[in-house]
Amino acid sequence: MCDTCGCEHTGETPKPVEPQRIPVVQKILSANDQVALENREHLRAHGITAFNLMSSPGAGKTTLLLATIAALREKTRVGIIEGDTASQVDAEIIAATGTPVVQINTGGGCHLDAPMVHSALHALPLDALEVLFIENVGNLICPVAFDLGQNYKVALLSVPEGHDKPYKYPAIFEAVDIVVVTKADLMPYLDFDLEKFRVLVHGLNATAPVLVLSAKTGEGLEDWLAWLGERFV
Amino acid sequence: MCDTCGCEHTGETPKPVEPQRIPVVQKILSANDQVALENREHLRAHGITAFNLMSSPGAGKTTLLLATIAALREKTRVGIIEGDTASQVDAEIIAATGTPVVQINTGGGCHLDAPMVHSALHALPLDALEVLFIENVGNLICPVAFDLGQNYKVALLSVPEGHDKPYKYPAIFEAVDIVVVTKADLMPYLDFDLEKFRVLVHGLNATAPVLVLSAKTGEGLEDWLAWLGERFV
Repeated sequence: MCDTCGCEHTGETPKPVEPQRIPVVQKILSANDQVALENREHLRAHGITAFNLMSSPGAGKTTLLLATIAALREKTRVGIIEGDTASQVDAEIIAATGTPVVQINTGGGCHLDAPMVHSALHALPLDALEVLFIENVGNLICPVAFDLGQNYKVALLSVPEGHDKPYKYPAIFEAVDIVVVTKADLMPYLDFDLEKFRVLVHGLNATAPVLVLSAKTGEGLEDWLAWLGERFV
Repeated sequence: MCDTCGCEHTGETPKPVEPQRIPVVQKILSANDQVALENREHLRAHGITAFNLMSSPGAGKTTLLLATIAALREKTRVGIIEGDTASQVDAEIIAATGTPVVQINTGGGCHLDAPMVHSALHALPLDALEVLFIENVGNLICPVAFDLGQNYKVALLSVPEGHDKPYKYPAIFEAVDIVVVTKADLMPYLDFDLEKFRVLVHGLNATAPVLVLSAKTGEGLEDWLAWLGERFV
């Protein structure tokens, strides 16, 4: 019994509750997943391959996109959906390259969802695109749970964030098709243990490659472009 | 009308909906705020001043806490609550300093809430503490909305994240009592415009000081300790 508030708390640290195992007879799609399915069909019908980029704030999603747009300019036609809780600073940076871009402001919401992306798709010239990058809201946790209808999920982890992040945020590393370590140019100034990071990621996800790149120096960009290139329709 | 799915979307980018203004006759506390009130009373009854540290993943919350613990060892008695979606790596690092610490694992949840902190308080030797640091889950969005019963809210923003973050994540900068720019030792290698960052923060929050520090070199640590020292009971 707690003296101050009279509650019955035992002092134990809360633990995640194990979900009860209930036999699933038929998979009922959630409202989000239903729209994600429609988005996927939209994209397929237009011959567009879509990538959902997820990371912490400031991990370098926009910078990687700028380098990617520049490299793909002669090879394919790229469109961008930008997700942020507020502002359109990233969309303005992308628009300055002449790339079709739509900004989604979530109004404080911590992730994109399929209906937001659905609306954004209608604002893009889909017939003129072959590749779509969706830059999710900067958040290493919430975006993972929402299928947007993308073909591939990409996690970025910047070197300054530290190699221990798969311990603390395992869900994103389990879920993605590739992990991109960004800001590799900062390696000399930080204690980022790349081999430890690879071991942690592959402990959660045996198949996702771990690429290391610096959009600033260009290091590793070819590997990223090669991985992308294998996935265009 | 959309050809692929037959929906009526107009193609407009979704915008945040302005909340309707309803006259508030009486403020009804939410379940979280009620427990936060109890936490605040617990802490007050024990003479403890509590700080809620919020930031992106890898911004340096634990590293700042380690430097703070070392500096305060002779001056006061510190306790720590560690919040993470999974693992207890941070709590183990803190425990190695001999500091009382409780790990909260949210089981994937994107923020701490007041009931979690309430349980954790019961697992700490409150009578032996004067200062409590609550390290929230690494997330620049969701933790802001949940009062934990702390006395002060602290936002950390690391230099590699970039000076433009107040544009994209305004809510946290509006809500806090102080903004700490971490990893200042990386300034020479990045294009972080400190003056622009100050202007953006103070445009959202006129009263929160913006401190600049590096837990690695010790730069700015005295300013942080001075700010803390003024707030202990």
